Amino acid sequence: MSISTNTAGLAGIVAGQTALSTVGKEGAGLTYRGYSIEDLAEHAIFEEVAWLLLYGELPKQLELDAFLARLQSQRDLPAQLKAVLAQLPESAHPMDVLRTACSALGCLEPEHSAADQFRVAERLLAIFPSALAYWHHFARSGNRIDTESPEPTMAGHFLHLLHGVQPSAEHRRALDASFTLYAEHEFNASTFAARVTASTLSDMYSAITSGIGTLRGPLHGGANEQAMELIERFTDPDHAEQGVLTALSRKEKIMGFGHRVYRDRDPRSDVIKEWSRRLSQAAGDAQLFAISERIEQVLRREKKLFPNLDFYAASAYRFLGIPTLLFTPLFVFARTAGWAAHVIEQRADNRLIRPTADYIGPSTRPFRPIVQR
Amino acid sequence: MSISTNTAGLAGIVAGQTALSTVGKEGAGLTYRGYSIEDLAEHAIFEEVAWLLLYGELPKQLELDAFLARLQSQRDLPAQLKAVLAQLPESAHPMDVLRTACSALGCLEPEHSAADQFRVAERLLAIFPSALAYWHHFARSGNRIDTESPEPTMAGHFLHLLHGVQPSAEHRRALDASFTLYAEHEFNASTFAARVTASTLSDMYSAITSGIGTLRGPLHGGANEQAMELIERFTDPDHAEQGVLTALSRKEKIMGFGHRVYRDRDPRSDVIKEWSRRLSQAAGDAQLFAISERIEQVLRREKKLFPNLDFYAASAYRFLGIPTLLFTPLFVFARTAGWAAHVIEQRADNRLIRPTADYIGPSTRPFRPIVQR
Repeated sequence: MSISTNTAGLAGIVAGQTALSTVGKEGAGLTYRGYSIEDLAEHAIFEEVAWLLLYGELPKQLELDAFLARLQSQRDLPAQLKAVLAQLPESAHPMDVLRTACSALGCLEPEHSAADQFRVAERLLAIFPSALAYWHHFARSGNRIDTESPEPTMAGHFLHLLHGVQPSAEHRRALDASFTLYAEHEFNASTFAARVTASTLSDMYSAITSGIGTLRGPLHGGANEQAMELIERFTDPDHAEQGVLTALSRKEKIMGFGHRVYRDRDPRSDVIKEWSRRLSQAAGDAQLFAISERIEQVLRREKKLFPNLDFYAASAYRFLGIPTLLFTPLFVFARTAGWAAHVIEQRADNRLIRPTADYIGPSTRPFRPIVQR
Repeated sequence: MSISTNTAGLAGIVAGQTALSTVGKEGAGLTYRGYSIEDLAEHAIFEEVAWLLLYGELPKQLELDAFLARLQSQRDLPAQLKAVLAQLPESAHPMDVLRTACSALGCLEPEHSAADQFRVAERLLAIFPSALAYWHHFARSGNRIDTESPEPTMAGHFLHLLHGVQPSAEHRRALDASFTLYAEHEFNASTFAARVTASTLSDMYSAITSGIGTLRGPLHGGANEQAMELIERFTDPDHAEQGVLTALSRKEKIMGFGHRVYRDRDPRSDVIKEWSRRLSQAAGDAQLFAISERIEQVLRREKKLFPNLDFYAASAYRFLGIPTLLFTPLFVFARTAGWAAHVIEQRADNRLIRPTADYIGPSTRPFRPIVQR
């Protein structure tokens, strides 16, 4: 028996249950375990949000302190992982590098059973920024950086390793808020891929590896890179308006706008846009933010499209001095909390995720030996 | 709008269309692009089947010759991949090693656009057996094997690299037939994961990496390893009968039996069982096959369960001298043809695969600062 509906892309199909977040549910907006994303992005640090997703409640001070200390103590890379990263060329896409780092760590520090799942989740949260920064510097300059830093948060730690200097409080806070916005988003494609992987009772590393490979695509996390490439084509707002109109007339897809689930607005966009504006002012930027706003206006006017999180994340990350190719990897750092929480949730009430397909191929046909073909 | 049905695990939900295979469709049995699996396993070599899946028709002799030559010429590993494999310890699970090899190759030889997809698919088919054998020998003995062999087929090549000697014609043929059986199976979990990854327009390596990580689980490809572990617990058929009855009374799940889609029988099981019987006789085996048959009888009698492909694949692989931990990786070698064909099919008519979820978490609740928790 199969239920045949118009299910292309499983749009609107309920594929399971979750207690992690509401996306586009009437009246709720976007919440993580009941807390609004606006509150979390403004009042909590990313590590509180990661704890909330993994363990179910916001941490008390002692819990948060212990969590931060555990993460800080696990930032260093095993020697074999450094050796693996050193083999990956500068030309490699950083998402491919993170995917490989995750997979290789699964060989070095395997998850022996589901009893290990929180340990592995915390290790991955701690190590991804270090792994990316290590490879980034080694591939470009041959410099083997120290992956320790005095920074207590992931945001500060990554900025410190990337730039080699202590970040400003505002930069730290901006990146931290973006991590909160990126941390979790229900059954998006990468999270769903991670749950499909977990549903065969495979290990945490395999599930997160699936998540990274899926996030990489331009219809998902890769959108923030593509948004930046678009914005950077233009020298001022009027130029942007002309360029976007031309692109639309050529039916080009503009990345960073619209959403499978949201219909009118992405609640995350307002938060990241405000950060982009603040960073723009602090940077004395005269064009990048104005160009971004104009692109938003044109798409709203011409196509009734609204920006999603990826669009203003692009300019915000540029103001933080982050190279475009590292934008989607930053999404990985944050979403690892959501992916891991979904794997844990999937395992708690597992059923193999195995849909079926409509067959549209040739009818049964007789085999012909190769000499008769 | 969401369609809320009893969709746990998406059982019976049509998630898309395929022209690649029929699984459990009335009257058709299992076919690959219209050809019955029984015909293909008996009359074709695996490379003909891989060509059929990738390119749509059975190859003519000249096409097959050129395909075999291309695959043979691409078996060697890049130096950086050898260096990566050399970092992965003997204790690593070979599935984690293959997952990492696939991901690392994506850094070294990226797919620049969908125009590369057939090149990448062929490269992966050619290189996986070499990569696994290279790591297997290096991790155990420090021996850096030559990954070239004079064997024209993947089955012969892998047996040659594994054992270091030319395989017998019967061993070659048995492994080859098992590859055909494992090559493709509609929207199973690993193929579905690969399609979810591909649906964000991510690259072929990411999709295949998702496939490997998903296949690894004991509810999917990992079942053949678990079946072998079960069979090897017993010294004779009566012992097996007692052991299985005990396991059933403890509600233990027996791997290698039953199937999400098939209701009465797995058409692949008859073929692999016959190979297991032939190899058993050739090996002068007195127990292993008999134990396997008794386990089948007990599960049929007690639970009305039938063996799936994984059950007799286990003993067949044992007769070929293949270590248990390499069973699921052999599944990867073959299924790479199916995964790649599905990625190509997904891309040809892509829609992002993004379902939705029923929210069962806390109601919206006010944020409380950490000092008030």
